[in-house]
Amino acid sequence: MRAVTVADGKLAFTRDHPRPSPEASLGEVLVRVERAGICDTDLQLIKGYMNFRGVLGHEFVGVAQSGSYAGRRVAAEINCSCARCEMCTGGLANHCPNRTVLGILNHDGAFADYIAVPERNLHVVPGEIGVDEAVFIEPLAAACQIPRQVPLDKRTRALVLGDGKLGNLVAQVLRNHGCQVLVAGKHPEKLRIIERLGVGTEQINQLRRVRNYTLVVDCTGSPTGIATALELVRPRGTIVLKTTVAHAAELQLAPIVIDEITLVGSRCGPFPIAIEALRAKKVEVAPLIQDIYRLTDAAQAIEAAGQPGATKILLAIDESLPSIKRLKP
Amino acid sequence: MRAVTVADGKLAFTRDHPRPSPEASLGEVLVRVERAGICDTDLQLIKGYMNFRGVLGHEFVGVAQSGSYAGRRVAAEINCSCARCEMCTGGLANHCPNRTVLGILNHDGAFADYIAVPERNLHVVPGEIGVDEAVFIEPLAAACQIPRQVPLDKRTRALVLGDGKLGNLVAQVLRNHGCQVLVAGKHPEKLRIIERLGVGTEQINQLRRVRNYTLVVDCTGSPTGIATALELVRPRGTIVLKTTVAHAAELQLAPIVIDEITLVGSRCGPFPIAIEALRAKKVEVAPLIQDIYRLTDAAQAIEAAGQPGATKILLAIDESLPSIKRLKP
Repeated sequence: MRAVTVADGKLAFTRDHPRPSPEASLGEVLVRVERAGICDTDLQLIKGYMNFRGVLGHEFVGVAQSGSYAGRRVAAEINCSCARCEMCTGGLANHCPNRTVLGILNHDGAFADYIAVPERNLHVVPGEIGVDEAVFIEPLAAACQIPRQVPLDKRTRALVLGDGKLGNLVAQVLRNHGCQVLVAGKHPEKLRIIERLGVGTEQINQLRRVRNYTLVVDCTGSPTGIATALELVRPRGTIVLKTTVAHAAELQLAPIVIDEITLVGSRCGPFPIAIEALRAKKVEVAPLIQDIYRLTDAAQAIEAAGQPGATKILLAIDESLPSIKRLKP
Repeated sequence: MRAVTVADGKLAFTRDHPRPSPEASLGEVLVRVERAGICDTDLQLIKGYMNFRGVLGHEFVGVAQSGSYAGRRVAAEINCSCARCEMCTGGLANHCPNRTVLGILNHDGAFADYIAVPERNLHVVPGEIGVDEAVFIEPLAAACQIPRQVPLDKRTRALVLGDGKLGNLVAQVLRNHGCQVLVAGKHPEKLRIIERLGVGTEQINQLRRVRNYTLVVDCTGSPTGIATALELVRPRGTIVLKTTVAHAAELQLAPIVIDEITLVGSRCGPFPIAIEALRAKKVEVAPLIQDIYRLTDAAQAIEAAGQPGATKILLAIDESLPSIKRLKP
């Protein structure tokens, strides 16, 4: 089959990658991939983050080839847990120490014609959600994790740092929870997308440096995001960290203690909530789709995803399906 | 009056410091100081932390000289807030941006015969609490802040990093909340004090490096405490930061996100709860008192407090009161 792989910082497209064999003992089924999204984490993995080797890709939608979802369009949670350890039996399977992670950790991903996934990771995609939009289920679920970790209401003065894809989705989720939301970013065109969704925005360098926000969400993707967040969060406020970067950050800890700030690391989230938000059109993702490329042009697609100002780049792995945009190039 | 002051890193004892004039517009009353405690924060202030200039000392007990508590023994909350700003009216007076802090920020402290304190900061010390033990009300209140910020129960596997005074008090508070508590520290003699209180201990370098604790409290007083905490906290676990250090720490942020760790800064706490714990002898503090010095010997006392392995050093400002230890030297 066709696949996009990475090893030792080298990206490769091959036509003769072996089709994965679903491992029955792990409850795996084969999924034929229709669409996949390129995430900033993929760009980090290509640069060597997590020392990942294998098929890239963890945001995707496809058709299950066997098992109880056979023939249905599915999205997949990315953490493949052991179901036996203390974390798994304690309801924290996403933190299973024995886990593999699709396209990120010891498990081939979705930039390929087929992927093997544990059946319990699958969620049916309702017909109301288009195939291109369905790729956003995984990152939207990550945004939907925040309300599960932090109490939100209409008194929440939320600042989202970063106008990228995740910042956009987080802003929509917070707005849907009644928060007062402002997104601060660098890219006028990305801020405009957010404004059209009805969320207030500000150029980050024009933001008043007042410690006014009860909640700051760092979606900058930069190790310096947290320092900016600490300048803007109110005493007793909360900073949610969504940025995973390989670098260390230099942090003054005393202000965290003196101002009793809470920092919350936040990663993967609830697929059913994300699916329902997309189905009910409570969250809009189509404006975030910049371009759609064929799998054979993955190298070009990945390069486009790495440009400053890029929004979401999709891979049309099944080219026969109609897309909301003409395929590039 | 007698007072111990600091300015530009210079400690001085004077006999002719002007007695403070309580500011009526701030609701201040004069308190005649009986005992004060030397805190690690005092040692940091002497080294230049917060650029503090004035009379040191924020842990103390004394007798109110006027107002509704006149003639009674009182302890005092250290944050003097404006009572008008959004933080004050929102129930977060300890975070008032206009606040002064006794002996720490723009307010003379308690290493002196008298201190001026807003009357609303005072709490009556019940007769069951000895004058020496009463000095611990302030640091014990800081330990009692943790249960107000973090849910605790008998499933909480708590690790306290640091066997100093605060680590000891935190361990007792967590134990009283039903947590499984282990204290890890460097000093055999301090660990022995904690063991005699019925709390498990371990030499930090012998601690098994397993990510096993649902709660880690950093009371190390070191900028490296947080990195150790991150090695030992369980995914989805909580780290409470009690250490205020002037230095920055180098932090890997990705593990905080990937493991969805919550970091909670924690500072001053509820005096009534601390007073009741001491009154009911639920927390023991006498074993922490190493030595008691006269105010005239404050320089010696402060030097003793700065020695590795030191526990609490008190200043007997009213030497006529009986103490649980003979005054040094």
